Amino acid sequence: MDSDNDTNPSNRINEFRSYRQRMNERVADIDHLGIKRFFRLDSAAYESGALDPKTKELLGLVASAVLRCNDCVDYHLDQCVQAGWSDEELHDALNVALVVGGSIVIPHLRHAVESIDLIRAGDLTSPAE
Amino acid sequence: MDSDNDTNPSNRINEFRSYRQRMNERVADIDHLGIKRFFRLDSAAYESGALDPKTKELLGLVASAVLRCNDCVDYHLDQCVQAGWSDEELHDALNVALVVGGSIVIPHLRHAVESIDLIRAGDLTSPAE
Amino acid sequence: MDSDNDTNPSNRINEFRSYRQRMNERVADIDHLGIKRFFRLDSAAYESGALDPKTKELLGLVASAVLRCNDCVDYHLDQCVQAGWSDEELHDALNVALVVGGSIVIPHLRHAVESIDLIRAGDLTSPAE
Amino acid sequence: MDSDNDTNPSNRINEFRSYRQRMNERVADIDHLGIKRFFRLDSAAYESGALDPKTKELLGLVASAVLRCNDCVDYHLDQCVQAGWSDEELHDALNVALVVGGSIVIPHLRHAVESIDLIRAGDLTSPAE
Amino acid sequence: MDSDNDTNPSNRINEFRSYRQRMNERVADIDHLGIKRFFRLDSAAYESGALDPKTKELLGLVASAVLRCNDCVDYHLDQCVQAGWSDEELHDALNVALVVGGSIVIPHLRHAVESIDLIRAGDLTSPAE
Amino acid sequence: MDSDNDTNPSNRINEFRSYRQRMNERVADIDHLGIKRFFRLDSAAYESGALDPKTKELLGLVASAVLRCNDCVDYHLDQCVQAGWSDEELHDALNVALVVGGSIVIPHLRHAVESIDLIRAGDLTSPAE
Repeated sequence: MDSDNDTNPSNRINEFRSYRQRMNERVADIDHLGIKRFFRLDSAAYESGALDPKTKELLGLVASAVLRCNDCVDYHLDQCVQAGWSDEELHDALNVALVVGGSIVIPHLRHAVESIDLIRAGDLTSPAE
Repeated sequence: MDSDNDTNPSNRINEFRSYRQRMNERVADIDHLGIKRFFRLDSAAYESGALDPKTKELLGLVASAVLRCNDCVDYHLDQCVQAGWSDEELHDALNVALVVGGSIVIPHLRHAVESIDLIRAGDLTSPAE
Repeated sequence: MDSDNDTNPSNRINEFRSYRQRMNERVADIDHLGIKRFFRLDSAAYESGALDPKTKELLGLVASAVLRCNDCVDYHLDQCVQAGWSDEELHDALNVALVVGGSIVIPHLRHAVESIDLIRAGDLTSPAE
Repeated sequence: MDSDNDTNPSNRINEFRSYRQRMNERVADIDHLGIKRFFRLDSAAYESGALDPKTKELLGLVASAVLRCNDCVDYHLDQCVQAGWSDEELHDALNVALVVGGSIVIPHLRHAVESIDLIRAGDLTSPAE
Repeated sequence: MDSDNDTNPSNRINEFRSYRQRMNERVADIDHLGIKRFFRLDSAAYESGALDPKTKELLGLVASAVLRCNDCVDYHLDQCVQAGWSDEELHDALNVALVVGGSIVIPHLRHAVESIDLIRAGDLTSPAE
Repeated sequence: MDSDNDTNPSNRINEFRSYRQRMNERVADIDHLGIKRFFRLDSAAYESGALDPKTKELLGLVASAVLRCNDCVDYHLDQCVQAGWSDEELHDALNVALVVGGSIVIPHLRHAVESIDLIRAGDLTSPAE
């Protein structure tokens, strides 16, 4: 729930993007070789391989939803929108997550649906890198 | 933690109720047949069957607590209070959740105990539908 | 799945009971004060308090099912049958677990339904202490 | 691990398919309306919608892998092979699950890789319905 | 994310400490014997035994990180700093948590790295008891 | 439970070691760059860094126990015994996992205690590489 309950929810996605970017830079500053390699491996997992990046982002979204991580859901929604998935397709993927993960996923479904709306509303601003 | 740390915690339950209602309506607007059916199935699971609704809400509370979902805990606490469970009974159920789920449940126990207090304090306002 | 796939499934519950008893004794032999206290606290959580033991065992069953632990499900099913819950009531409780936890709970639902059948079939043998 | 360690692993998939079918029939016999509706909703989630069934099965596979459910992984692998995903594509999807879910997913990756091999080896036998 | 996104993050740790202390007192007021015993058992688990308290706090930190509980992470970070672990050692422990738990742990890694910085910056104030 | 219930449990650890080695080789044969890099990153996480390998293996054990993965527990127990941790120290670490993770960890505690006994009994045979 948390910041979802803000009186000004339109800023939620932007705040997440800037916090994520700032802290990713701080984590990089730590200069831990294992952590840096993990971050590169994480990025590489969604690059073109036997599967295309668009499909992989949808896999990342559903994995994040069933594991109930709002930040991960928001990150992958940003990527999914950029990759060209429509709202209807994203909702259909979230339905798979809902059935696999059960009603405990519902708060994250509400969060995700709001995030999609916020991302679409802010399309003129540049998304998270 | 999050909104638990607010300087004005007395609004936390009300904010959750209105956010939940608003976003449930937005989710319904999406008009995804699978998602709508899931929401109906979710409601039906707590209706009278071999077990009575009062017992089922307590099952929902403990399931939510061990799965560590504050929003789900708050929703089922609202229902449990309406169903007539006393504070002592709710605390005893939360103890089962604590022993099954371990110390990782403690932040959610603190949240739940505060929520019970807030729900009782706001008894004059109508609870979430 | 595992031993569910045995050609002689009728022994599954009995094997679990004897393995559980034997290893609980081995764990007690270790004589770790914290572990021994945890085991006592675990037993005490299901004893009479604000809630009665029968209700608490049903809470333990649903918590075990959504956390997807077959051994814990079997243990609480043994206790629930002894406490007097009917098959219909147990199935209704498992339905709450299914809706909360999603399709990922289905293998444990199959396991639990089989366990209930096996426990009822073996009613003449003494259940786990 | 369990039956993965069998001296005759080639039967593992077939045993799972027959156990799953037998127990699904037993669960249907229980005749619990909520459970029956959940099973239908579960099947419907993978049928054609905004997303095609082939994509949805891959989503189901990755969700099952990060939630670490071997039975669910085997079921969705059966469906994914039928839907026409190649080994390389399945391995690439499992890599997303591995990165999202971490090394705790490795035992399920080993299981899944073996299951793919077993399913391909048994292609002449009819898969689970 | 939540309070991580605050414009004044320097207060996040202090707010958590005071909320935790206040609600632990409220939980103690409930006077539920099982809950009180669980809290004592929880404290005792980190006291000197076969392992020293410093090592145990690091175990508690990694357990909290892979189970993805920010409040638990913050509590154990406070204890770990008091026990004398350096930043480099804490980051190395968090790397183990990252590899075991996967990218789903990354939001909690960002949170933990920020918490370490905040705890060090506030060293003149007394940490949580 | 599963193979824990075998009439000849003394082979359980050896069977796990050989299955793990055989399937790790099969996974390597797949030749997926991301998966291979993940396996190397996983190994590297336990090598000497700011923390020594002995401490890191204990962190891996506790992370595996609270995430309830028997295979991961067995692997890290093998490594912990090789690293020189005593039974008393391993039991003390498992107690931390039990308190953090709750009674749902108990089946894995029983498994781990049996695994330690089996590993010690088979000390003359070479452990898993």
